Amino acid sequence: MSKLEDIVSLCKRRGFIFPGSDIYGGMAGTWDFGPLGVILKRNIMDQWWKFFVENHDNVYGIDAAILMNPRTWIASGHTATFSDPLIECKECKSRFRADKIADGINESVTTEEFLATHTKCPVCGKENWGPIRKFNMMFSTHVGAVLPDDDKDLTEKSTAYLRPETAQGIFTNYKNVVDTFYPNLPFGLAQQGKAFRNEISPRDFILRDRECSQMEIEFFVHPDTWEENFEQIRKANHDFLENVMNLPKDKVHELEVPAKDRAHYSKRTIDYMFDYPNGQEELMGLAYRTDFDLKNIERESGKSMEYRDKNTGESFVPHVIEPSIGVERLFLAVLSAAYTEDEIDGNKRIVLKLPENLAPYKYCVSPLLKNKPELVEKAQKVYQILRKKYNNVTWDDSGNIGKRYRKQDEIGTPKCIVIDFDTLENDTVTVRDRDTTDQVRINISDL
Amino acid sequence: MSKLEDIVSLCKRRGFIFPGSDIYGGMAGTWDFGPLGVILKRNIMDQWWKFFVENHDNVYGIDAAILMNPRTWIASGHTATFSDPLIECKECKSRFRADKIADGINESVTTEEFLATHTKCPVCGKENWGPIRKFNMMFSTHVGAVLPDDDKDLTEKSTAYLRPETAQGIFTNYKNVVDTFYPNLPFGLAQQGKAFRNEISPRDFILRDRECSQMEIEFFVHPDTWEENFEQIRKANHDFLENVMNLPKDKVHELEVPAKDRAHYSKRTIDYMFDYPNGQEELMGLAYRTDFDLKNIERESGKSMEYRDKNTGESFVPHVIEPSIGVERLFLAVLSAAYTEDEIDGNKRIVLKLPENLAPYKYCVSPLLKNKPELVEKAQKVYQILRKKYNNVTWDDSGNIGKRYRKQDEIGTPKCIVIDFDTLENDTVTVRDRDTTDQVRINISDL
Repeated sequence: MSKLEDIVSLCKRRGFIFPGSDIYGGMAGTWDFGPLGVILKRNIMDQWWKFFVENHDNVYGIDAAILMNPRTWIASGHTATFSDPLIECKECKSRFRADKIADGINESVTTEEFLATHTKCPVCGKENWGPIRKFNMMFSTHVGAVLPDDDKDLTEKSTAYLRPETAQGIFTNYKNVVDTFYPNLPFGLAQQGKAFRNEISPRDFILRDRECSQMEIEFFVHPDTWEENFEQIRKANHDFLENVMNLPKDKVHELEVPAKDRAHYSKRTIDYMFDYPNGQEELMGLAYRTDFDLKNIERESGKSMEYRDKNTGESFVPHVIEPSIGVERLFLAVLSAAYTEDEIDGNKRIVLKLPENLAPYKYCVSPLLKNKPELVEKAQKVYQILRKKYNNVTWDDSGNIGKRYRKQDEIGTPKCIVIDFDTLENDTVTVRDRDTTDQVRINISDL
Repeated sequence: MSKLEDIVSLCKRRGFIFPGSDIYGGMAGTWDFGPLGVILKRNIMDQWWKFFVENHDNVYGIDAAILMNPRTWIASGHTATFSDPLIECKECKSRFRADKIADGINESVTTEEFLATHTKCPVCGKENWGPIRKFNMMFSTHVGAVLPDDDKDLTEKSTAYLRPETAQGIFTNYKNVVDTFYPNLPFGLAQQGKAFRNEISPRDFILRDRECSQMEIEFFVHPDTWEENFEQIRKANHDFLENVMNLPKDKVHELEVPAKDRAHYSKRTIDYMFDYPNGQEELMGLAYRTDFDLKNIERESGKSMEYRDKNTGESFVPHVIEPSIGVERLFLAVLSAAYTEDEIDGNKRIVLKLPENLAPYKYCVSPLLKNKPELVEKAQKVYQILRKKYNNVTWDDSGNIGKRYRKQDEIGTPKCIVIDFDTLENDTVTVRDRDTTDQVRINISDL
């Protein structure tokens, strides 16, 4: 098994992530977070919120609806251009994303260019292709009382989309916040929430799924100061990834996106690439979006997006710098960095070396033997004391102590506290370290 | 203005809640949470999670995808029966939910019954109705590479729904959790997340919206013990609503739903009604759902949902008790209970008497005068000290001190700390209480 497969297997075995709708044979591109995954995901999202929002006077939260007025996506360009090149095998009717099954082409491939690659159908092996067609990745739905037999006009009028990014829920609220809070520049609007993309071929576990959670901030800045603001956020991103998420510095790489590969409105973009088990992939992005989005909204809504500086009296449309990260991508980066196989006394083990601020449980409390009531009772006492102090303490009296250690290693619990017969004598416990497996005796009162 | 309108106005004016997609003329039934609304919503959701999940050994979290395999909704009955009676005026083509525009009928009204009420169209005033039709409230979409001109068969096969409730994301993961964690009965699976209902006529602010956040727990219990489990959860709900959310006891009413009004599978249901400004409405529900859902899943999936008791060896399908609450309903209940108009020294004021654990900010720090640098500097020092201690401290140096008090009253900040010239002399500050408006002098070190 590859390391990614090992991680997928651990996630299922230990209740971090299950395939979505598994009981009914699944739902491609969706994943359900199990009990431990929920805690890890919450920890990641809460740490991000604390680091980027709560710790700053000038960053405000937004939580916009997933269903937005469809004009949002006309203004942003998603209706016209948020598409992948779709190609169909005329023999077996299988459909593919053209740029993913042929080498040397990109998303803007033409039918002629694709045919020139002489790609065979990955399903039936034939080479008989229909034309490349643009497949819009937004999920569409109908809002309001529209019935299946309504005419096309009514049906089209009711069409809305699941947002393909959280960013537009921020931009559309920019004026609300300015008119309510009168913030000075630079200020940020931050949002955590779901986004949906109808990927033609979801793949790579949670890396390319159809439903994901995003964490995005739009920083509104004076056009003249964008470079220094960009630098500050660039450094903050490293600080967050390396010191809060504990990702190894040498696995995070900045990719300065060259002008020809950048979105046409962006004057500078840095992709933060991460060394995932299957290779380098984008973990997060930092883009200088100029005044592109606010100007689009001005045009589509007919309302001014100008900001008036209280001190200078100057009026202008602010420019925007956007750090953007997918929760699932970060989740997988954290797991990949933590996943370790080593050997203890000649026995192989799997251990998740999660940092303390992210591990689902910080402590596991156990009686050495589960059939000795006096040990169980004492262990329960210690457990209850710790639970009152910390909210991330677990109890384990399954199997024998060796099995419990293996289990807690696999779910990343930094410390196991074991109550044995000595505890009954002198109120000391064994504290076993996840990473070194070293054991020390400590007084209960010193825990 | 009614009290509800006052609250809506305050929400917009102070940045709690804005109408969704407001910049484009809105999107009916959607709402965007602004900076203060995000904090209040997070506080409410975090308190619920702590109270019902983290504080209990036997409650596990789940975070399932919104897009689920469509068989989920066949099994649950939503595909067949999750519908409202839709009626169309033949004159002006307006559509309505029949039971909401005529008196004395309910959701299962027939065309004949509706016509007998002689209701006139609320839009054009005529009385010329088409037949009642069932309108399914699930939002549908298409998952996978389906194009607009694909044949009906392919289109239908790709149809999926936005989940109309979070509960099924829990039930479909019941077996995953049992097989991974081997929990003893009773145990709970808890989820917070979005759910979508295509209401024909969204109304009453955030009470009946098309997109909402739910907080649900499914408690899996032995069939013989359901009554005592039900009673425990019933009490816990009151404890949460009245002591954690601080809702007045006399505004929360239990409605024992009579057998004829209960869902056919439920043997007991209590609706917790709340006195909202516009009248009593359901705030949360507690339902004994028997083994209805797990049996449905057994039938649809062909997989056994039996639980095997480790101690007795007994095998059976557990029964389920479900406390369920909508975040927006709770949010509005909290706001309604807190919203107060009173008079201070002959001046009317609006004050949000939010409890400390929910208020967006606990403290506001201010210099008495904003044009005295020595006061601003000292106030900033106090502000930074408090920010390090608490994450919910705000700064305000806008307008004069009277206006700041009014603003902080309106957003529910319990204490305003003011730095004046005496502070420079003796390191004491004025602490002003939101509810009583009393002011006391306190040493900075005692804050």
